[in-house]
Amino acid sequence: MFRHQKELQFEVKVDCPDPMLARQVQEVLGGQFGEMTVMMQYLFQGFNCRGEEKYKDMLMDIGTEEIGHVEMLCALISQLMDGASPADQAEAAKDPHMAAIMGGINPQHLLVSGLGGLPTNSNGVPWNAGYIVASGNLLADMRSNLHAESQGRLQVARLYHMTTDEGVRATFRKMLARDRYHQYQWMAAIAELEEKNGVVVPATFPPEAEMEAQEEAYKFWNLSEGEQSAEGLWATGSAPDGTGDFKYYADPDPEGNIPNPTVPASEVHHDLDKELLKRK
Amino acid sequence: MFRHQKELQFEVKVDCPDPMLARQVQEVLGGQFGEMTVMMQYLFQGFNCRGEEKYKDMLMDIGTEEIGHVEMLCALISQLMDGASPADQAEAAKDPHMAAIMGGINPQHLLVSGLGGLPTNSNGVPWNAGYIVASGNLLADMRSNLHAESQGRLQVARLYHMTTDEGVRATFRKMLARDRYHQYQWMAAIAELEEKNGVVVPATFPPEAEMEAQEEAYKFWNLSEGEQSAEGLWATGSAPDGTGDFKYYADPDPEGNIPNPTVPASEVHHDLDKELLKRK
Amino acid sequence: MFRHQKELQFEVKVDCPDPMLARQVQEVLGGQFGEMTVMMQYLFQGFNCRGEEKYKDMLMDIGTEEIGHVEMLCALISQLMDGASPADQAEAAKDPHMAAIMGGINPQHLLVSGLGGLPTNSNGVPWNAGYIVASGNLLADMRSNLHAESQGRLQVARLYHMTTDEGVRATFRKMLARDRYHQYQWMAAIAELEEKNGVVVPATFPPEAEMEAQEEAYKFWNLSEGEQSAEGLWATGSAPDGTGDFKYYADPDPEGNIPNPTVPASEVHHDLDKELLKRK
Amino acid sequence: MFRHQKELQFEVKVDCPDPMLARQVQEVLGGQFGEMTVMMQYLFQGFNCRGEEKYKDMLMDIGTEEIGHVEMLCALISQLMDGASPADQAEAAKDPHMAAIMGGINPQHLLVSGLGGLPTNSNGVPWNAGYIVASGNLLADMRSNLHAESQGRLQVARLYHMTTDEGVRATFRKMLARDRYHQYQWMAAIAELEEKNGVVVPATFPPEAEMEAQEEAYKFWNLSEGEQSAEGLWATGSAPDGTGDFKYYADPDPEGNIPNPTVPASEVHHDLDKELLKRK
Amino acid sequence: MFRHQKELQFEVKVDCPDPMLARQVQEVLGGQFGEMTVMMQYLFQGFNCRGEEKYKDMLMDIGTEEIGHVEMLCALISQLMDGASPADQAEAAKDPHMAAIMGGINPQHLLVSGLGGLPTNSNGVPWNAGYIVASGNLLADMRSNLHAESQGRLQVARLYHMTTDEGVRATFRKMLARDRYHQYQWMAAIAELEEKNGVVVPATFPPEAEMEAQEEAYKFWNLSEGEQSAEGLWATGSAPDGTGDFKYYADPDPEGNIPNPTVPASEVHHDLDKELLKRK
Amino acid sequence: MFRHQKELQFEVKVDCPDPMLARQVQEVLGGQFGEMTVMMQYLFQGFNCRGEEKYKDMLMDIGTEEIGHVEMLCALISQLMDGASPADQAEAAKDPHMAAIMGGINPQHLLVSGLGGLPTNSNGVPWNAGYIVASGNLLADMRSNLHAESQGRLQVARLYHMTTDEGVRATFRKMLARDRYHQYQWMAAIAELEEKNGVVVPATFPPEAEMEAQEEAYKFWNLSEGEQSAEGLWATGSAPDGTGDFKYYADPDPEGNIPNPTVPASEVHHDLDKELLKRK
Repeated sequence: MFRHQKELQFEVKVDCPDPMLARQVQEVLGGQFGEMTVMMQYLFQGFNCRGEEKYKDMLMDIGTEEIGHVEMLCALISQLMDGASPADQAEAAKDPHMAAIMGGINPQHLLVSGLGGLPTNSNGVPWNAGYIVASGNLLADMRSNLHAESQGRLQVARLYHMTTDEGVRATFRKMLARDRYHQYQWMAAIAELEEKNGVVVPATFPPEAEMEAQEEAYKFWNLSEGEQSAEGLWATGSAPDGTGDFKYYADPDPEGNIPNPTVPASEVHHDLDKELLKRK
Repeated sequence: MFRHQKELQFEVKVDCPDPMLARQVQEVLGGQFGEMTVMMQYLFQGFNCRGEEKYKDMLMDIGTEEIGHVEMLCALISQLMDGASPADQAEAAKDPHMAAIMGGINPQHLLVSGLGGLPTNSNGVPWNAGYIVASGNLLADMRSNLHAESQGRLQVARLYHMTTDEGVRATFRKMLARDRYHQYQWMAAIAELEEKNGVVVPATFPPEAEMEAQEEAYKFWNLSEGEQSAEGLWATGSAPDGTGDFKYYADPDPEGNIPNPTVPASEVHHDLDKELLKRK
Repeated sequence: MFRHQKELQFEVKVDCPDPMLARQVQEVLGGQFGEMTVMMQYLFQGFNCRGEEKYKDMLMDIGTEEIGHVEMLCALISQLMDGASPADQAEAAKDPHMAAIMGGINPQHLLVSGLGGLPTNSNGVPWNAGYIVASGNLLADMRSNLHAESQGRLQVARLYHMTTDEGVRATFRKMLARDRYHQYQWMAAIAELEEKNGVVVPATFPPEAEMEAQEEAYKFWNLSEGEQSAEGLWATGSAPDGTGDFKYYADPDPEGNIPNPTVPASEVHHDLDKELLKRK
Repeated sequence: MFRHQKELQFEVKVDCPDPMLARQVQEVLGGQFGEMTVMMQYLFQGFNCRGEEKYKDMLMDIGTEEIGHVEMLCALISQLMDGASPADQAEAAKDPHMAAIMGGINPQHLLVSGLGGLPTNSNGVPWNAGYIVASGNLLADMRSNLHAESQGRLQVARLYHMTTDEGVRATFRKMLARDRYHQYQWMAAIAELEEKNGVVVPATFPPEAEMEAQEEAYKFWNLSEGEQSAEGLWATGSAPDGTGDFKYYADPDPEGNIPNPTVPASEVHHDLDKELLKRK
Repeated sequence: MFRHQKELQFEVKVDCPDPMLARQVQEVLGGQFGEMTVMMQYLFQGFNCRGEEKYKDMLMDIGTEEIGHVEMLCALISQLMDGASPADQAEAAKDPHMAAIMGGINPQHLLVSGLGGLPTNSNGVPWNAGYIVASGNLLADMRSNLHAESQGRLQVARLYHMTTDEGVRATFRKMLARDRYHQYQWMAAIAELEEKNGVVVPATFPPEAEMEAQEEAYKFWNLSEGEQSAEGLWATGSAPDGTGDFKYYADPDPEGNIPNPTVPASEVHHDLDKELLKRK
Repeated sequence: MFRHQKELQFEVKVDCPDPMLARQVQEVLGGQFGEMTVMMQYLFQGFNCRGEEKYKDMLMDIGTEEIGHVEMLCALISQLMDGASPADQAEAAKDPHMAAIMGGINPQHLLVSGLGGLPTNSNGVPWNAGYIVASGNLLADMRSNLHAESQGRLQVARLYHMTTDEGVRATFRKMLARDRYHQYQWMAAIAELEEKNGVVVPATFPPEAEMEAQEEAYKFWNLSEGEQSAEGLWATGSAPDGTGDFKYYADPDPEGNIPNPTVPASEVHHDLDKELLKRK
């Protein structure tokens, strides 16, 4: 069960409304790597966690924090939209510079949300749950969390350069710092988990079952012309878990055959040649 | 530019058709972490790569390999659907055991694709590009790649237990081995990149700009009741890059105020009390 | 079966083309609460109506009217786009004021529809059937209809202020009046249905089955700090159907326990500690 | 800012696992009218609320309650999936009755979430924000809330009959009672708001602006053959706000003309007849 | 403006309810090539048609017919679901054969639509407007229409074999015949349009502008190993409009260079090597 | 299996960066008829092709070519975005003309892809597999391919007029020429297939089964007022396959009855009148 406290986690204070920036900020609210994503991802991972109390508690801590980040960004967008009523917009359109800004506004901030935050990205695409994952496998999921925080902080950093409003930048600084912590946090959790079960996900798939395909686990297939890819750590030396050595195949041949699918029954209506159907 | 070779990368041979398994396999073809996802993700990362030749080449190698994995899974699904024409299905429905299997079939394998693979997941949801990312930041993207391969291998491992068909299992073994390699590969690439620029994404955001919010980068906010989360590496000791020490806040207070948004102009039509509008 | 009459339900006459407004109008054509939504919602409710002739007929009347509203808005958008060919646009871009307007144009009005209306909202998101409902329960559905007409009229009212084109405004006035009627209409239908079966949906769920949870039906859980919510009609007095009295819980405790899910079998690959698996 | 308490709002105890029911329950978790919808809708309405403290507080109370309902349903689904590992499933498939159940399982409960709840509906369609609205207009939004609770309770009531598991039914009873309260709550809020501003949304659109289209606000257009629709309260008597009397048009004529759109410039590439282009 | 007539275009009479077939029929109602698609596609093409009266009228005729087909399929699905209440389903589940059928049921037919048709495909994916097109170019659009009717009839033909219910089959026969007519119709329209403007879309793009790339319009690039593709009409002889002769390139070389994108400014945060940034 | 060659199929050279054009070009990269669509459509058709070697090979040739077109457009967009870093944008915003252009930029080109191509259309809607089809029936699919190339070339032609950059136009010319060839190619393949099996899809549905509905295959239903539609080839003369003569029904009557669906059991919760339930 959850409870809500009226204060925001961090202060949000915009020096000057800026409807175009409001549109851009939507990316880190309702985009693929916005706050809605990390909120829903951590909550579902926490809700579904089985048998690992300290991870579950930690997931619930941070998932709960992220609900507050969605709240914070809605407050930010509301302030950025202040004074941008439809009629203000129509007035603005008479001045070329203002008209320019208008072209960059999200029309839904006026028509749909009445100057409030939207559960969509910077192009108005609604947030959807295809962005998130809660697989039950903690290492897989925490790698997902680390990547989400990496992409998220990258976007806030880019956004930071798109405004000179000091109020807005102060909020972004807090977010950049929290996203930095969250990257540290998932790295630390990943280190713990890799220590326990090894670096490959899932760890519980029996290696002997994979035996016959063993060598495929160390092979680099060079399928793009040029061999610059031979220079990386992935092409030489040992696998990170020391189970084998990488091998670079500069010009690998396919190991399978040409597929030769069965001719289907006529009521599948592929409309094949009668000759083909006969051969069936 | 690309070229196609008719042989499959690995052999695909199904011992016995199984339309219900065909539906399940769709998850690793067209689901969130299926082969279409890694194919499109690596290709876009490669296409958009600027100024880092060996990474670009490596991304193109593996992206090109993944196109062949989509091809391989289509061949697998076609074989699993062999002999499952609509009329076969109607016939099957008369036998309770077969009817059961029918209930588990994806109707689109009959109606839409005529027994072939679909660009959808195991529930028939079409693949969409909201699953992928190519941000230009290599470390962020390779963390994304590592997580995708972790989730992908997890799903293939689960799928492995859902069949006893030795032909199918042989294909899965190859996929498990390749997904293992691909996890190694991204780990190796990540290690290289972290070595070069540090572990936080993005590395180029100037630390001094973040200065005033500095302490937020080391703080654990305990927002879920209970302190089991204090036990992890994320709550004590130093940050992975040694820039500071973690601090656990067992009962943190909000640092912001209660938001107090402006009352909007009447033509935004919030229909507020006249009193409120007056106060404006 | 349906028939089409060539005249529009209401006259559409734009005084002056305005491609930016064309984009904004898309919201009330193909957005969440646009004419496509009410058209498809009323038609499906009518098609699926069982055993209530006068409601079915009424749903078909208004669903049929709404097809004509989609037609009307396409005519409006076509006129707003007049003269905005790709080359006109390129030319326009040389003038700052015109360029500004260009920034606000939906590129698909040029590239995809060739100056016609699109089945999308103002941000170009395609209409989808996740916006509508036809549940078979008339009261539930008519509440949905009332809310759709409320949101729809709100958006047209906001749009009204974004233009000063008298031709366009005349069309909006007709739409505002019809949306007003449609709000009245659903209120009247709702009043009839509530009179018949009571105000709670569904009415046919046996109250005795709900008995043991009875008190939850009158309880306000105050889960956000502060007790301003105690001031509303929902917190004191009787339920609208007089079956009980509301009670305000200022600091409610959870009634359930901490969930303790079973540790899954190892082939679900949660990769849990061996200790945990043993305890299983 | 939010906080989490480990106990569930209500107790969840499943007598016997049932993976097919787990799939069906997804509808009220991640479907169009599931708990994710009301949670996100009330939170966004609360976050964006301007200038009406008691409504904002109330929205935050109930939005916060709904986060806990998502949590509860995840716990329910986890229990329903207990013991349904991939290998259990393969084993089950040998028995016709169990195979039948398998056909009805959501494959993603095994492959994607590892036996946990998914942010999708009963057919696996991911939740998306196109389901929700937060318009800033309280009356419009609360009508939306009333309809969502009506559809939601209807679905739980239907679900109730699909199981005889007394544990599960006890949870549903709590949900049915809460959904009943939430219907009462929105009715009470709506009554307050209609009392203040009138029944038509938005109330602030100036009636004089609508004057010329006035009569359209009271007219029933009979566009479906048959006049059963004349029998309802919407066809006779006065509008709910007493501003006019309804009038039934049994055979209404269109009031507009046949649209006659301009022939576009040739570089729009409609490929029209040269004759047509000449006439331009 | 539209009008509705209460009779269905064709009689719908199901001999025996069949909830699994109800699910399958959804494909041709709300799937990619279902009746909703052709209805919305023809209506939008008609609404947006400029300056070609006979085509516009024809589009409106067939678009209007298709609204009635959506109506017809809803009636069919309602009959197929008769007697399949949630409790009937729970009862049925006790019998293995019935349970099997239950596994194949769309749970939303019970929970969401209350036994009525849904605006979704056979896997429950909501219809969306990304399925349709109305480009303004009649030849392009009519080719789209011909393909939609081809896919649609193919699916109905496959569906036909999935039932032996004579009532249902009679409805399918009517649909197959209409889909046959509609294929003829678009072929005839296409023939007319190709006669007028030539076979290439768009016809109005000036050939001289394409001059320098001219030869690319007749070249077959053999990019898949093997030369079976040389056997087709597309590889030898003249183009259908006689403007040139096809030429088969058995081993074509790329005509472009290796792309060499600029290194971006550091505030794009690609985190490149300092060396690279220097070279910029 | 696939291989990649580093050179682009055609040269891409932008004379001058243009971020607004970059947004527009996204339509032909990731839109409904963009290169991602034809790439995925041809590849899936090729992968799923059964028993028709020369068509399969040809599909693989062109599908493989299209992967290279996605690559080419990413290169084009990268060049168009050169120098448009977030800070450049903020600077630009100070100049009205530049600000105008900024309004028309896709914010995701800055925030999400770091100046690279996105797998989305010109409005930022992610590509999804609902755009493509691979049905197994070659004639149906090749009609789909012809329509996709027609729409695709139309969009490139429109785009051509939106820029005067000679570098960009040179790339478009190559694309226009290739799209012309691809239209020829599908026409040629269609001619071959129609020659073999007839013009109606599917050809293998037995005509005798359709017998009783026979006349519906030649009937034009005039359902939109006015008889301009009688003037086309579809209304008079013989069907393209000579199996019958078209007949124009100027005022057709419905052939079905008024649907009369059964009243559902009370636990479906339609909340019908008790009287109605009794009659059941």
